Amino acid sequence: MRIKPTSRNVLLWGVLLAIGFACTNTTTQEETKQKPNIILIFADDMGYGDVGVFGHPTIKTPNLDRLAYEGQKWTNFYVAAPVCTPSRAGLMTGRLPIRSGMCSDQHRVLFPDSKGGLPENEITIASALKKADYSTAMIGKWHLGHLSSFDPNAHGFDYYFGIPYSNDMDQTLPEGVGYYEACANPKVSYFNVPLKRNRETIEQPADQNTITKRYTEEAVNYIAAHKDQPFFLYMAHSMPHVPLFPSAEFKGKSLRGIYGDVIEEIDWSVGQVIDALKENGLDDNTLVVFTSDNGPWLIFNENGGSAGLLRGGKGGTYEGGMREPTVFWGPGMVAPGVVTELGTTMDLLPTFCKLAGAELPDDRVYDGYDISSVISEKGKSPRNEVFYYRGQQVYAVRKGAFKAHFITQPAYGSEGPTTNETPELYNLNVDPSEKYNIAEQHPDVIEELRELMEEHNATVVPVENQLEKR
Amino acid sequence: MRIKPTSRNVLLWGVLLAIGFACTNTTTQEETKQKPNIILIFADDMGYGDVGVFGHPTIKTPNLDRLAYEGQKWTNFYVAAPVCTPSRAGLMTGRLPIRSGMCSDQHRVLFPDSKGGLPENEITIASALKKADYSTAMIGKWHLGHLSSFDPNAHGFDYYFGIPYSNDMDQTLPEGVGYYEACANPKVSYFNVPLKRNRETIEQPADQNTITKRYTEEAVNYIAAHKDQPFFLYMAHSMPHVPLFPSAEFKGKSLRGIYGDVIEEIDWSVGQVIDALKENGLDDNTLVVFTSDNGPWLIFNENGGSAGLLRGGKGGTYEGGMREPTVFWGPGMVAPGVVTELGTTMDLLPTFCKLAGAELPDDRVYDGYDISSVISEKGKSPRNEVFYYRGQQVYAVRKGAFKAHFITQPAYGSEGPTTNETPELYNLNVDPSEKYNIAEQHPDVIEELRELMEEHNATVVPVENQLEKR
Repeated sequence: MRIKPTSRNVLLWGVLLAIGFACTNTTTQEETKQKPNIILIFADDMGYGDVGVFGHPTIKTPNLDRLAYEGQKWTNFYVAAPVCTPSRAGLMTGRLPIRSGMCSDQHRVLFPDSKGGLPENEITIASALKKADYSTAMIGKWHLGHLSSFDPNAHGFDYYFGIPYSNDMDQTLPEGVGYYEACANPKVSYFNVPLKRNRETIEQPADQNTITKRYTEEAVNYIAAHKDQPFFLYMAHSMPHVPLFPSAEFKGKSLRGIYGDVIEEIDWSVGQVIDALKENGLDDNTLVVFTSDNGPWLIFNENGGSAGLLRGGKGGTYEGGMREPTVFWGPGMVAPGVVTELGTTMDLLPTFCKLAGAELPDDRVYDGYDISSVISEKGKSPRNEVFYYRGQQVYAVRKGAFKAHFITQPAYGSEGPTTNETPELYNLNVDPSEKYNIAEQHPDVIEELRELMEEHNATVVPVENQLEKR
Repeated sequence: MRIKPTSRNVLLWGVLLAIGFACTNTTTQEETKQKPNIILIFADDMGYGDVGVFGHPTIKTPNLDRLAYEGQKWTNFYVAAPVCTPSRAGLMTGRLPIRSGMCSDQHRVLFPDSKGGLPENEITIASALKKADYSTAMIGKWHLGHLSSFDPNAHGFDYYFGIPYSNDMDQTLPEGVGYYEACANPKVSYFNVPLKRNRETIEQPADQNTITKRYTEEAVNYIAAHKDQPFFLYMAHSMPHVPLFPSAEFKGKSLRGIYGDVIEEIDWSVGQVIDALKENGLDDNTLVVFTSDNGPWLIFNENGGSAGLLRGGKGGTYEGGMREPTVFWGPGMVAPGVVTELGTTMDLLPTFCKLAGAELPDDRVYDGYDISSVISEKGKSPRNEVFYYRGQQVYAVRKGAFKAHFITQPAYGSEGPTTNETPELYNLNVDPSEKYNIAEQHPDVIEELRELMEEHNATVVPVENQLEKR
């Protein structure tokens, strides 16, 4: 679903909006019972190669591996941006973060002193599904604005339990301990991040040693308490973003070191969620999606992840920064197999709305497509292009197999950005590692991709920047 | 199983040899029926990352993925050398190729004008299992000597169908067509390789367009014809070694291009073999092993494979050259799961002998270990070390998680070899990509690994070099 704002459309939007919302309110009790539950599990800074079934040799993820085998393993699934806040804005709204003012060349993400956040007039997955009689909950890291007008409760979530921004923020480091040292040998007291239940701070600093376990308990309890009403549960783990805090049961367990401990605990958590669905008889009517917000934070070396065979990482627009290990699971709902079709986190809003019978107002541009037929029938994806934004600018464009880099920036910590006189061009199907630049052979493809970028840029209307508000 | 040649052992060997062989001949008809069939499928130049379940995003390998899920996916499985002939010598004999004279610093592999081959006094998997009443067959590329004293029939195989050496040899290129050009745009006539049935040449040049399909038909027919006798089938595909010749059904089918076409045809072939086992009621008593001879031949760019997240490729002693995507399958025989224990192709000889109740004479050093308990129970591997040979020299040594590079050579076509004053040291469990050299922190580990190498080198007795015989 991608609607361009034309003058004719503008006239229709108000009417459609009213009808759409009216329709969802006429849903009967019986129809409600048929609606599928939706669980979206989101990791933080997890690389494409950090899951067993995506190729990691020593991180053991038996639960994710099983879900990938029983469901769909997506190998060309993208996020809206290679860093946290804009990626999550894209996920929640089905729109590129440039449209909501949630990306910036100056401040890459929101910080504890930020005054901005996801604008109130944005429609999130939660607010859309709530209108279709879903119970909605968020557990974990939000990072779309911590002030009350921007927080999860302001954006359609009935319930919230988690931290408002990244787990490495609100630093209270002793003298002589720098940020990198604090992340390498972390203590809970170094990061004075609040833990919230709805708008109440219930712990500060959040005890990160037990946070994954507590997120999991919250999720399991939520599932048990909501078996009679369709629900949307958004579970956003705060790790493997540094600092890494596995719980006592997982510390030292993984061959991969502490980074592996954290991933293996997240994998355990996924297993707990699936078990809870089974115990409550909901496994045949729940769609579970697993993905991450951006690629691995490579500057942290062994404490950062791996993009597998993909080039680059977090903060960059090579594949490693924006392509994520993604699994869709739901017996009877998801046609099993490996999916090489294109998808993005922005496609989840229209897809979930389709599954839930929720209407979306036509008063704005959506960048997401309804990919429900790919999920249910392994059909062709309606998506044929990806825009790789860094901050407020498109750096690269993919259409079909081809990707042109107009500007390159491999990752945080690497040189760049570099504006390319002749863009780099790769065939991502043949060359997923972006090793063999074929620009010379295909100047026509580069021009086609440049036009696509220019057409896209013309749809972008300037809005207030939320990340620069202090 | 690793026996050091001591003077006491030397006295015992003759006796054990005689007893061993006598025992296998007393096997009754009934016991024979219980013995498992063994199928070893070997690819050529296939990288660690070239299988779906090992992380490739666009090469589709549903059959290998399923076998990995139903059986064991081994993520730390090695070959004996990073190039073809010595790797296969290690596979067939359970001994490092230095012990049979099958590696050389001068000629890396055997060529059509070579006069050498695997010595007649070497015991192969086939000759060992034949003594335990197995029917034995080889289908595919041999590359351990094409003269009749070295060929598959000379080394324990009752039946042979395939090519004697690499599919890019015996070049008959038209004037103006160089080797790289011939591999990039191959024609069957460019490579005058013979196709043999036992010792008879039945086709020359072998029609490589249909060769994978014909190997598969041969395997399926062999399985059907041998359902009443335990058998060992060694199926060594000649590709994805260049030149790449997918059959008409697979040409242009893979998103990954012609390299993907070839792998997808091999995956189809694996599925045909499994189907044949099922159709003949043999699937509950057959162990199937899949692996490859060495890492991807990177200098061929898009026509070469990917080592995934591993560093280096064919011809080198970083992980990408010698760690292979490996699957063990056999319902009821193989305990399903991901195995991170160490294993090598040299472990297959003692393991298969254990499963088959075949005795091995104690008159020589074996470098393989019996890993049958890892396969059946997911126990600890008896193997704790890997020697990374290039030619006749140990370049690197792994013990447990640690690997020291005394000499480095990333791959064919890269700079080197470089002798390191301070060896590079990596923790492969934490850092499988060999990115973070920790030599400075662990000089003691380097010394331990150096001693291990020196102890190993002391077990090597000079023998006639087979690859230098012209």
